[in-house]
Order: sequence, then C-alpha cells, then structure tokens
Amino acid sequence: MKFSLTILGSSSAVPTASRNTTAHVLNVHERFFLIDCGEGTQMQFRRFRIRFGRVHQIFISHLHSDHILGLFGYLATQTLIGRKKEIEIFGPPDLEKFVRNHFSLFPESLLLPIVFHSLDQSGVFKIFEDKAVEVISFPVKHRIPTWGFLFREKLMGTNNLLNEPRTFAYCTDTIFDPGLATVFAGCDLLYHEATYGQKELNRAVSTAHSTARQAAELALLAGAKKLVIGHFSARYKDIAILLDEAREIFPETIEATDGLTIDIPPRLPSKF
Amino acid sequence: MKFSLTILGSSSAVPTASRNTTAHVLNVHERFFLIDCGEGTQMQFRRFRIRFGRVHQIFISHLHSDHILGLFGYLATQTLIGRKKEIEIFGPPDLEKFVRNHFSLFPESLLLPIVFHSLDQSGVFKIFEDKAVEVISFPVKHRIPTWGFLFREKLMGTNNLLNEPRTFAYCTDTIFDPGLATVFAGCDLLYHEATYGQKELNRAVSTAHSTARQAAELALLAGAKKLVIGHFSARYKDIAILLDEAREIFPETIEATDGLTIDIPPRLPSKF
Repeated sequence: MKFSLTILGSSSAVPTASRNTTAHVLNVHERFFLIDCGEGTQMQFRRFRIRFGRVHQIFISHLHSDHILGLFGYLATQTLIGRKKEIEIFGPPDLEKFVRNHFSLFPESLLLPIVFHSLDQSGVFKIFEDKAVEVISFPVKHRIPTWGFLFREKLMGTNNLLNEPRTFAYCTDTIFDPGLATVFAGCDLLYHEATYGQKELNRAVSTAHSTARQAAELALLAGAKKLVIGHFSARYKDIAILLDEAREIFPETIEATDGLTIDIPPRLPSKF
Repeated sequence: MKFSLTILGSSSAVPTASRNTTAHVLNVHERFFLIDCGEGTQMQFRRFRIRFGRVHQIFISHLHSDHILGLFGYLATQTLIGRKKEIEIFGPPDLEKFVRNHFSLFPESLLLPIVFHSLDQSGVFKIFEDKAVEVISFPVKHRIPTWGFLFREKLMGTNNLLNEPRTFAYCTDTIFDPGLATVFAGCDLLYHEATYGQKELNRAVSTAHSTARQAAELALLAGAKKLVIGHFSARYKDIAILLDEAREIFPETIEATDGLTIDIPPRLPSKF
C-alpha cells in the first residue's frame, strides 16, 4: 500500500534551470493528490510519467503566482485530452473567481466539471475524506492567507491490522511557527519550506518565509520521522549549506529535487 | 552579425515530455525578440541560457492558451529579479486587458512598465522598427484573430554594403493560405506550423491548422530559403513522418526541437 510524495517543483518564486516552482503529488494507495500547481506542472507530469487521470483532488496553499500559475495549463490539457470526470479543488476563497475569470476568455478550454471548496482560516478542519485518506487544513502565517495540509492514511480491513496509519504534513509558504508542531505531531513526513539559509534570517522574517534551520526545528518539535525541505530561493546554486544547517538540528532531512519520490514504508504498531 | 532563431517550445496545445508549448526567441544583432510565450517559457530561458534582460519586445500571435500562458510567470520573474526597463508587447487587442486583469490579484508582481500595442487585422503593417530590424504584422486564418510576423534585418554603414538584409517569417496558428506567399516572398527562414500529417488533413482544415506538406507548399510558393516546421500535435511520438512529407515538397525543411538554434548566415548580393 503506497504512501509516497513526488516533488514536481522545488524552487521558490523564481524557477531555475533544474527546479520548477512549487508542485507535489502525494500517492496514497494509488490515489493521487496534487498539492500546489506552479507553472509547468503539466510538463512535470509528462516528464515523471504521472497520469493526469489519476488526480481527482487538488489542494492549493495560497494565491501567489508560483503556487498556481500551472493550474490554467493543467486544466486546459485535461479538457484537450478528453477528461470528463470531475476535479475537486481546495483552495483560498478567491481561487474559484480567479480560475473562472481566466477561462472566460477560453470557455472551450475548460469543459470538465470543477467543484471548488473554500478553505477556512479560523481553525483546523477536515476538508476531505475518501476510502484511503483524510485531509486536514490548517492556517499558516504568510503575507497573505495561506494553509498547510495534513494527509492521514485510513486503514481498514483485517489485512492492515498490523499497520499504523501514515501521515504527511505540508507547510509552505510560512514563517517559522512553533505552534504548528501540535497540528502534525508525530507525522511520518513533513514537507516544510526552507527558502533561505540562516544568514538570511532577517529576510526570511521580513518576507514571511523560513530558514532551513527553522524547518528542522519544527520537525524536531513535532517529532516528525522525516523532513523534506524545499521552496529554495534561486540565489542558492547549491543547496548543501541549507541541508547542513537543517541536519545539524534534524538529521533525517532530505533535499527536495524535481522528480524525487519519497516512499514512506508502512509502520508497525509501537508494541512490536 | 547574428540572425538566428531559437525554438523554446515545439508542441501544439498539449505539451509533451520533450516539447513545451509555443515560444521562440529571434536574435538580430544581439537584440532578442520573444515570439509567443507558452507555459514554461521562463524555464526555457534558464535551460537554454538566454538572458531575460535582453528581450525588450514580445510578439504574441493570438489569444490561445498555448501561446500566452507563460507570460504571467515570465513577467512576474522580471519584477522579482529587479527589472526596471520597459517591455513592449505587440498582440491582439484583448491581450492588455487579459494580462492586467490577471495581475490585479498580484499587483506587487508586475512593477515593470509595459507598453501594449494592439495588432490590426485589416492589413499588413510595420509595427516596430529599431536600428537592427523592422517587424511587419499580417493576418493569418485561424479560429480566432491571429497574426504572423515578418522580421526584416536593417543593414546600415559601409561594413555591410556587401550583405543583403535577412528575413524571418513566422506563421502559426493558421490554415494553409497560399495568399501569404507574397507577404514573405524570398524570406531566408520561414517558421510555419505543421500540427498534423497529411492523413489528418481533414482535422487540420476543421481546426484551422496546417499539415507539414502544406507548410512545405507555402515555403515553395514563397521561394523561402529554409523552412522550419513546428507546433506538432502531441499525437506524433516521432516527427519523421511529418518531416518526410514536408521534404518531399521542400527539401530544405528542418524539424523544430526545443533548444534548437537555427543560424541564418549573411547572404551576398545576387550579383556575386
């Protein structure tokens, strides 16, 4: 039973030759969830051989260009390849207006049914549930309303009695916020933005982003099993320094790279 | 004195793992002109090591997604990297409204001055001129108002007395239109869409696109020196069949591939 995250874009606002802007696909038991959708997401699906048809839910953290510009092409291509099945999009309240407004110029490009769900900043909410997973949204602190997402596996049936549900927490874009640790305590994988190194701490604070070290501190506070850092500023040609700063605090840190898949193996109950 | 075309995207509406949607850069004496701007254009600039700062004019053929979706990210990145210099955009009358409307959600992402110039369908017009080049727009026949562009080198000064001006004609998206041959008669390089092979002629006609063979026929009629075909339907895994069909009619045909640069060497006057 798969539980894996594939990175489609690991750069922050400005893409580089090797890093697209933010997008991820989470595979839970062969159900695929698209999380953020930066420019070029549809090309990354092709490059990394992920089938569009497998995604039925999209989660958008906030309305900054580098997290949403890929939506238009992604959705237009679904229509072009003949998709008829509904897509659900969970995102900020203005997202629906923004997407529909864009397509008003190309009405023939958006023929598939889309159901938009507005996220709510006032607390932590379960926003989606199916046979395999439940998804919880929680507010994070950025320059505009922004949400993180917690994906929690659901295990049913006798075959799975020996396993414990796996969890994945997604936090970007956000200032360092230790209060989040309780929201995803004990998660198996935490994706946390690490736009800057510690030398740029002031810039991180003033732009409401985090440093790699802060991402690691949050992973430690939350008791996460593994941390993947991404959303790197284009100023870093080499991410080694960010990775070192994070690993000093939290050794189980991985660098996001475009195309990387992180598999979370099933975990046994603690009594074993 | 350079006169070269670099292909940034050679697919039609649906990108593939190796072909982005339409975008091109023409280099005339180290002045760079961006022609169409499909999704991912800014990433292609990075990949093929073209500097954003060199482009001051953008030409947009028509308002279909695969020719304009890259504009938002391309322009936002200019602001992020601190560009202050004006950009001129030549395109369909609705383009300005479309771009400004998009950025009304992200006003901080578009701080550079943009001057929009509306194209005119009623004839053939010189729309731009600088020291190195003049650009002519002409209407082509597609499902919505669409324009082609002719770039004509300007040669001044004694050093260039032995050369003749080079010309590049750009035609996409368009149905086969032999009437265009006179507009760019004798051009050094013709880019013409070849969305389909001859087997799909009916589909080409019904969608107002061209076949590879028709692109070659137009190159022949116009007396072009060289033809590059692109805007290929994603249905063709291998372009060999399109290239063969074109070369039967016009042997000097090249296949557009992402990253390809076609150099047009200076030509001597015919009396030599």
